[in-house]
Order: sequence, then structure tokens, then C-alpha cells
Amino acid sequence: METELKTVATIGGKFRDAQAPPVGNGSLNNMFVNKAPTAIVYCEGNFAQIDGKTANGLIRHSQAYRIVSVIDSKYDGQDSGLVLDDVTNHIPIFKDLETAVARDTDTPDTLIYGMAPSTGKLSQADRGVVLDAVARGMNIVSGLHEYLSDDAEISDLAVKLGVTIRDIRKPKLSKDMRLFDGSVAGVNALRIAVLGTDCAIGKRTTATVLARILNAEGIKTVLVGTGQTGLMQGAKFGVAMDAVPPQFCCGELEGAIVAAFDAERPDVILIEGQGALSHPAFCTSAFILRGSQPDAVILQHAPKRVHRCDFPNMPMPDPADEIALIEAFAKTKVIGLTINHEGMSDLEIGVAIATQSHKLGMPVTDALSRPEAHLLALVLSAYPGLIEQAPVAAI
Amino acid sequence: METELKTVATIGGKFRDAQAPPVGNGSLNNMFVNKAPTAIVYCEGNFAQIDGKTANGLIRHSQAYRIVSVIDSKYDGQDSGLVLDDVTNHIPIFKDLETAVARDTDTPDTLIYGMAPSTGKLSQADRGVVLDAVARGMNIVSGLHEYLSDDAEISDLAVKLGVTIRDIRKPKLSKDMRLFDGSVAGVNALRIAVLGTDCAIGKRTTATVLARILNAEGIKTVLVGTGQTGLMQGAKFGVAMDAVPPQFCCGELEGAIVAAFDAERPDVILIEGQGALSHPAFCTSAFILRGSQPDAVILQHAPKRVHRCDFPNMPMPDPADEIALIEAFAKTKVIGLTINHEGMSDLEIGVAIATQSHKLGMPVTDALSRPEAHLLALVLSAYPGLIEQAPVAAI
Repeated sequence: METELKTVATIGGKFRDAQAPPVGNGSLNNMFVNKAPTAIVYCEGNFAQIDGKTANGLIRHSQAYRIVSVIDSKYDGQDSGLVLDDVTNHIPIFKDLETAVARDTDTPDTLIYGMAPSTGKLSQADRGVVLDAVARGMNIVSGLHEYLSDDAEISDLAVKLGVTIRDIRKPKLSKDMRLFDGSVAGVNALRIAVLGTDCAIGKRTTATVLARILNAEGIKTVLVGTGQTGLMQGAKFGVAMDAVPPQFCCGELEGAIVAAFDAERPDVILIEGQGALSHPAFCTSAFILRGSQPDAVILQHAPKRVHRCDFPNMPMPDPADEIALIEAFAKTKVIGLTINHEGMSDLEIGVAIATQSHKLGMPVTDALSRPEAHLLALVLSAYPGLIEQAPVAAI
Repeated sequence: METELKTVATIGGKFRDAQAPPVGNGSLNNMFVNKAPTAIVYCEGNFAQIDGKTANGLIRHSQAYRIVSVIDSKYDGQDSGLVLDDVTNHIPIFKDLETAVARDTDTPDTLIYGMAPSTGKLSQADRGVVLDAVARGMNIVSGLHEYLSDDAEISDLAVKLGVTIRDIRKPKLSKDMRLFDGSVAGVNALRIAVLGTDCAIGKRTTATVLARILNAEGIKTVLVGTGQTGLMQGAKFGVAMDAVPPQFCCGELEGAIVAAFDAERPDVILIEGQGALSHPAFCTSAFILRGSQPDAVILQHAPKRVHRCDFPNMPMPDPADEIALIEAFAKTKVIGLTINHEGMSDLEIGVAIATQSHKLGMPVTDALSRPEAHLLALVLSAYPGLIEQAPVAAI
């Protein structure tokens, strides 16, 4: 299958590996909304749910692709913004690919597989939709662990029709990966990792909001992505950690952080966490802590979540225990807790914030339901020096 | 390159993935010394050194291959046992492949790449030797991260000459891998992980010795390998963790442990550690602790080692700190320390054992230079119940 991958991989120079952003009408820098390729996000049966987190994230924020519609028959005809966040975004949901394609005169450029099942595998029904999209001349983007470019039928058809298959999680060849060498210690920017007490709990969302409000305050901030959704959204720096051999995990993340610093000279580098350090199945955060050597950590937690996502037999950890684990595992400190308000009323969110800040003795907020100034204050209370570098007062 | 791999992968049924033992003259069970395929171990410039650990391990213990000679021009004509352990083993060292092959009337079946450079990559000179071996009709075994079966010239020649390329570290396809599901909790055997304070420090050697002496005492013990050397040596159960995507690391190790228990019903399962939990570059032990959920841990340490292997800028951790880290990270307890005596006199070893046992308040020994009864006692003092299951008294 290497050959198919290489035909993709050689278009457009050094960015053309399997994790590279799409060959756009323009460079990464001007690849914003209007210039970006158009994309339909496929999320049958999972939109606005946990396993639909890739679609949910792309609906909220996408630089690399212009999302024109979502596919989930359960919400046929509805507005995806209303369904997801009670705010109209004019991105409609359709019941199937045929209906979604029929909506526009031009077939959209891309079909993005918008689900992240814990198995990382493609169902037979979904495989049929991918083949249909390729047959319609659409490029395919997938974050599955099962690489679509390794599927003979899919990739042969893609080559025949001249469309690309972008397997976000497909790592570089081992010989092109780097080992951790400690150079991250020379990165002269505040490094904050956003970790969590579980998978699919809002780490990336909180990090994305925080990056935006820090930049808005004149505190130059870069977000380094570590998962497929962040890379699909167009993160300029990052690596899909879950697909890199452990031998190179720390080194590849370190390399992405050094590259982000050299290119942007930011004041702050935010590092997206993965899974949970305490998670029996997904503890990639161990590599994230070792590879990024963060000065500080923000912990994302969902008070109403009873068991680990997709693991009914694994209870959620207490934030206090996760914080102790993180600070025992790495030379860093947790500076605040952020809440995922799934299943909570506004009153319950307020109570959880008050209770946890009292219990943990640190700032607690919710990046989505509480004023952004609270999240900003969480960081500035730990690093007041940041504001001196900024032209505008923060609070 | 998939095609070449598949031609290898389909020979002989379910064991035929890239990590499977060689297609032998016989099953795994009778694949002991005389029945095993013959092999020359290539270790130019590194035999008896740290980066030659694969060759060093195979010289000391090999079930899957019968090692007939070693290649390292530095020791041309010497006995590999004498060079490595001051004990003749009648496995000669030759200066190059031509000389090694000329020694026997039949060309050996296999060339094993016996080095484990931290880069995991193949040098140009070594590549030439691999091509020469393939040209001579020898099968190739490699534990490099750079898969030789992905090298067009090597694999094309291999297919042409009908020889196999076994990339020990090449993982199964993601769709064939399993997620951690907690089933390891149902494994009714004592699980002991042998971790270390660094890479290439003797974890596998200590685990191999311990497995042998426990079995000799009638305490049925299975060693689950987690690295390429253990798998090359013929470990029946295990996975090369360093090459498995983090998403599946815990699950694949759990699967190997469950398989070992179901097949052998042992009293004890030993799990080979990798790197060090504190290691900035190689913390695969995080997955080993999560995936194996060990009842106990034995820690391997080299008192005279000043900095991490291959990382002059990274000082070695103190065993007490590593023990605290392990016990904070996982619900387990460290029951003893084992010494790697590199660079130490017998007196120094004795002093280190006395000092550390006093400082740590736990048994300390050296699996190679001290009586095996000491290592046995280290385990039995923590689990006296084991001996009741055994027919013979232990000490």
C-alpha cells in the first residue's frame, strides 16, 4: 500500500506526510475558512455524542477544512450548531451522503470520517460510505487506527480516481522519527499541558478556548495538538501521539514543541493531553508529560461522568487523586481544574466549581459555560508575569 | 511492501505474524537447541557492549535459534562466551560474514541483526551485510524500528531468493490489535514485573534467571517478553511493546498475559520491563504497569552507571526515587532490588547490596554474581505462600 501512500505523500513537498494538512488553495497560513477545501463530516449515529467527538470538534472549530454539512440520519434536516451547542451555525445535518452531496451544485472536496470509536476500526456500513465518497471523486480524511490507505479496495479506487486518502494517525516511517534529546528544556516559552481525568472529556476544547483568549490578550500562544481531531482542525504543530511507536513518542512531541517555538516564538505553548495518566487503557499522557516537560498542568474533569468513556467497568478517578498522580509522575504543578458540564444544570456547574475549588485549593472554571475571563484568570493567577508582556491588561 | 510481508506472514498458520517465532523444524514446544534453525548473530563493533544487548542476550539464552557464531571484527577468532562472561561457550566470533559462513559446510539458516542502537535504524555498512546475507539465501531477523521488509531492495531480493525477513518489532495491523479491557484482573497467577532504572540494564536477564530457578523449585513460572530480544530468544508469550501504537499497548500486553495464563496455568507470571518509568525518552514501563497490573515489582539497577544509556545529559535516578515513583504510579509494591554489576569488583557488589538493602529496607541481590537462592529468597520472602504450592522446599 506504500505506493498509494507515496503518491499522496509526494504532492507539495515537506508537509506531505500522512498527517499533513490538505493540499489547499494556499499555504497553511491563509488556509482559513474561505480558502480551505470543503468537507462533509460523516458521523452516522454519533453526532453530538462522545464517539462523535471528531465531528463535534470540527463543527466548533476548523481551519484546515470548510465544513459544509454533517451526516447523521438521527438529526436529518437539523442545524448542527443547534443540536450540539444550542447555537445556529448554518451547517446542516443530512441523512446520508447522497442527500448531502445533492445539496450543492459542486460535490464537496472531502469526506471526513468524523467518529473516534475506541476500537479505532471501520464498520462494514461505514466502509461502504467511504467507497461511495471515493467513487464520487471526494478525498478522504480519517483518524482511524485502521488506515484506509492500507485497504486495497479503497486505495486502489482512490488511485484510479485520483483522490487522496489522508490517514491522520498514520505515522511517519520510523527512520524519519526523532528520539527525545532534552532540547525541549531550551524552549523559552511557558509550557502548559491540558490533561484530563478521562478520554473525550474536553481537553482539546478547553485548550482551544484558552489559546484564543490568551492571544486576544496579546499573550502570544501556540497550541500543539496531540490527537487526530486537533490535526484535522488544522493545528500547525503537533503529532497524533496515539499512532507513534512508544520509542519515539516523547521525541516526536518534543520535536513538535521545539518546531512551534522556533517558528512562532510564542510566550505560551499549550499542549493537548490524551486519555488520562490514571487510565488503565490509555495513558499516553505519560509520554506527553515526559516529552513536553510542562511547567504547569490544567486538569479537565466531568463531575457527572460515572465511569470511563467506553469502559463501564472502570470508575472515574477523583480529581484530587489524578492531581497527586500527575505531580508525583512529573516535575510540574497542576494550576487549576476545568469542568466538562455534560449532564449538568447551570446550578450544578456552579456548585461543582465552588466545591472543587474549596476541596482542591485552586481555581476551577468551565471554558464553555463560564466567562472566558475566569479561564484567563486561572492562568494569570499562577503566572502574573505573563500580563506584563502583554499590551492590554487582562482582568 | 505489504505483499512481501504477507508472503512471510502466511507460512504456517496463526503464529505467522512479523513477531512470530521462525518456521522451525518442529513446534515451539520442541524448538530447543538441536531442532532450532541455525543463526549467525551480526554485532559488528558492539559485541559485549550495551548496544550489542540483543547479541549478548542470544549468546546467553536462545530457544528459537541455534546460534553458531557471532560477527564482530574486534574479537575475530575469540570465544564469545569468554569475551562476554569469562566462560567458554564454543560459539566463535568471526571478523565478517564471509568468514563466518565459510566455517560450516552448510550456510546457516539465518542472520540475526544483533544490535539495538537507540536510533533503531540501520547503517549503510550494516545494510550491505544484510543484502549479502540475503544474497547467500539466509533468512533475516531484525529488531530494528526501521523495518527491513519495508526496504524495497532488501525485500525484493528476499522475495526473489525465497528467504524470509522477520521484523520482530513490526506490529500486527491495528485492526487485529486489542484494547485493554480489565480481563487481566481475572488471571489467577502472581504477576511480578521486572522494571529498571534505565534501558539495557539487565531486566530481561534477571527475569530469565528468576523464571528458571522458580520453575526448578516446582513453582510453575512463565516469562512474558516485552522487547525484541526476548522474542528472538523464543519467548512463547509477549509483544514488542516499543512498536505497538500507544492506543493498544496496554491491551496487547494484557492479551499476552491472559494467553500465557490460559495456555500454561502458571503459579507466577513474570513480565519483562522496558526502559524506566522515570526515563524522559523511554517510559514504556507506564504501559507495562497499566497493562499487566502487577502484584509486585522487582527493580533492576546499575550502581556504577552515571548517566542514562545513550544519554550523557541525563543522570541516573536513585533507586529509592524510582521505587517511590513506581508505587505512586501504580497499585503495586516493589519487593526487591537486583544489581547490574557492570564496572564493579566483587567487593563493590557486596557493598552495594549491603548499602541498598539497608537504605531501602528490602532484599537486594545480583542475579548473575550472587547465589540464585538469594534471588529465589527475594521472591519467597514476599510470597511465602508460593513454596506451599511447590513439591520441594526452596531454601
